[in-house]
Amino acid sequence: MFSQKYYALGSCRSEIRELFEYGKKRAAEIGAENIYDFSLGNPSIPAPECVKQAVLDALDADPLSVHGYTSAQGDLAVRRTIAEYIEKTHSHKCTADDIYMTCGAAASLTVTLNALACNGDEVIVLAPYCPEYKVFIEQAGMKCVEVKCREGDFGIDISAVEAALNRNTKAIIVNSPNNPTGVVYSESDIRALGDLLTLAGQNFGRSIYLIADEPYRELVYDGAVVPFIPNYYKNTIVCYSFSKSLSIPGQRIGYILVPPQTCGHDGIYYAVCGAGRALGFVCAPSLFQRVAAECIGRTADVSAYEANRKMLVDALSEYGYEIVPGKGAFYLFIKAKGGDSRTFCERAKAYDLLIVASDSFGYPGYARISYCVSPKMIERSLPAFKKLIEEYE
Amino acid sequence: MFSQKYYALGSCRSEIRELFEYGKKRAAEIGAENIYDFSLGNPSIPAPECVKQAVLDALDADPLSVHGYTSAQGDLAVRRTIAEYIEKTHSHKCTADDIYMTCGAAASLTVTLNALACNGDEVIVLAPYCPEYKVFIEQAGMKCVEVKCREGDFGIDISAVEAALNRNTKAIIVNSPNNPTGVVYSESDIRALGDLLTLAGQNFGRSIYLIADEPYRELVYDGAVVPFIPNYYKNTIVCYSFSKSLSIPGQRIGYILVPPQTCGHDGIYYAVCGAGRALGFVCAPSLFQRVAAECIGRTADVSAYEANRKMLVDALSEYGYEIVPGKGAFYLFIKAKGGDSRTFCERAKAYDLLIVASDSFGYPGYARISYCVSPKMIERSLPAFKKLIEEYE
Repeated sequence: MFSQKYYALGSCRSEIRELFEYGKKRAAEIGAENIYDFSLGNPSIPAPECVKQAVLDALDADPLSVHGYTSAQGDLAVRRTIAEYIEKTHSHKCTADDIYMTCGAAASLTVTLNALACNGDEVIVLAPYCPEYKVFIEQAGMKCVEVKCREGDFGIDISAVEAALNRNTKAIIVNSPNNPTGVVYSESDIRALGDLLTLAGQNFGRSIYLIADEPYRELVYDGAVVPFIPNYYKNTIVCYSFSKSLSIPGQRIGYILVPPQTCGHDGIYYAVCGAGRALGFVCAPSLFQRVAAECIGRTADVSAYEANRKMLVDALSEYGYEIVPGKGAFYLFIKAKGGDSRTFCERAKAYDLLIVASDSFGYPGYARISYCVSPKMIERSLPAFKKLIEEYE
Repeated sequence: MFSQKYYALGSCRSEIRELFEYGKKRAAEIGAENIYDFSLGNPSIPAPECVKQAVLDALDADPLSVHGYTSAQGDLAVRRTIAEYIEKTHSHKCTADDIYMTCGAAASLTVTLNALACNGDEVIVLAPYCPEYKVFIEQAGMKCVEVKCREGDFGIDISAVEAALNRNTKAIIVNSPNNPTGVVYSESDIRALGDLLTLAGQNFGRSIYLIADEPYRELVYDGAVVPFIPNYYKNTIVCYSFSKSLSIPGQRIGYILVPPQTCGHDGIYYAVCGAGRALGFVCAPSLFQRVAAECIGRTADVSAYEANRKMLVDALSEYGYEIVPGKGAFYLFIKAKGGDSRTFCERAKAYDLLIVASDSFGYPGYARISYCVSPKMIERSLPAFKKLIEEYE
């Protein structure tokens, strides 16, 4: 009567969403102030003032065209502004013709994956990874191949990637700063990965694409630097979203960059346009295309995340938690006491501490703490973290 | 290196788009005032004032949550408002749990089609039809089966539909008011179609879904009434968009209604959620979800379209054109003089009159005139229409 595959996807909530819903129910029972919900990656700081101003300006400037369709790949002036920003910021030459505006990060990924997909193709993901990757890769008709990151610093395990590469490998998704670890992959990891993909591409006689999923690019702390991957590996397609940098995840606005040096550039760009059309995107929301261009380079006040992170890292280290040293996004990845992450997170739940077992990310033994929350909640939660670890002593 | 299917879709412009681009080029040569471009279905009247007000109110009310994710199926309060509106307006009982917010009409269709798609399924479209239907049906892995409407009034040819039905038929798409004919299918056509589908469903032992694609519902003239199809056939899924009623096509906002009486309702609704997730939609744009709820039942000043239509119908009838008597959308369908629509439209082009050959809609012999244009342009274009038909006398 209907698609069983999509029924399964729609009826079974993700583990994260399940935990969040549990939190809401529990909050109704015992009061929201007694729940420490670190489950969701939903920006907790307001959009910068420039967002509102850009909306008002756009509405005033031209009330007809601001609500009209843009061309399928996005408004030309908007794409020009973004290309200029990329060139200025990352010293990477590109033009409006390399940019395709999307309805946010997920759309950037599904459109790119569908554009690349050929029969029998495989896509490598680096575990731990956002569980939607598998959904998107399989929707595009490709096979999702998991490769584990290095235990410890959670950098890219180059030899593990090498072992997974074969003549069916079409692409690898790299998400840095990373969800769920918060890790920013180092320049040396990126360089080594690029070299490996170049070599493998030559060996297998095909281009292997690196899909850089970068919604957290601007959320970095302690002076961390996020390498701009197209500068290290030519066949890199960037999937960007303004959701986190501008705190506007609901507005669904992002872009795909197919850099000019990409092998098969024109074909891929056209395939991106075709995939966007077939999936039903028509064009990215026109008002927020303008807002994105107007606010590019600005961010919400991410120092709030930095303060949250510091508070958690300081306290949790003191209590004896082992923390993965990530310096980006708004996630902290900690080792699950006792080794089993589901048990650990269940025990945390007994203290109304909602953190996500890392099994959902394809890497057992850890837990993810989303610190895009109010600092007050973090403060209130600390005794619960303390009690939890004391159970294991 | 990339998907050939999507490359083809992305690199070859639709005939309509091709004509529009030609018009822009030609306007640069001879001046925009000398081009009579009736090619695109892009709303030409501004959004009603309530849209701007709703944006301002939403931004003021709660700057954090207005930009935040909503739940995947859409904000609960928004879905409630829409369900109440449907119940009040169409006397059709439904709740927020039957509504799924989308990024506009195209997304409503791709999500619905993917949710329904099973191996070997076929979907019937009524020609002439919007060429994107075929793209969407095939993307969902189904076969597109064309059934021609009655020549003359362009109503539904029930026996032709009957002949096309078989045990693989999963759905039929009904678009009323229609693009490209402007025709509103009559109550008796809808009733007869519903009866046929009920009977065929019983014969074949499966539910056949009617997908009502309704972006033009509010654009009707001369007192025409658009039957609300779920009241006539229970397995109707409504795909709606606010693009045309509120003149906000660029903002990408619409919804899917899976009415409570639909066979397999819960399963389909979950499959809709799953398909939306897999295609990368996450949630519909949050600001415009609120705007849609706030402005529901209001429209842009569609009397402007009515005036355009009258001016064209009066003049073209006088000149001797045969016009299909459609009373909705913003399209006029006229018989191509000489019989061959491509030749006819090419000859129109010689007068800088840009109208679309109906071959693109799967129904040769006609031409589509989009009258979502300025009345001044219509006025200026009339001598060209006159000269064109005089060629055939």
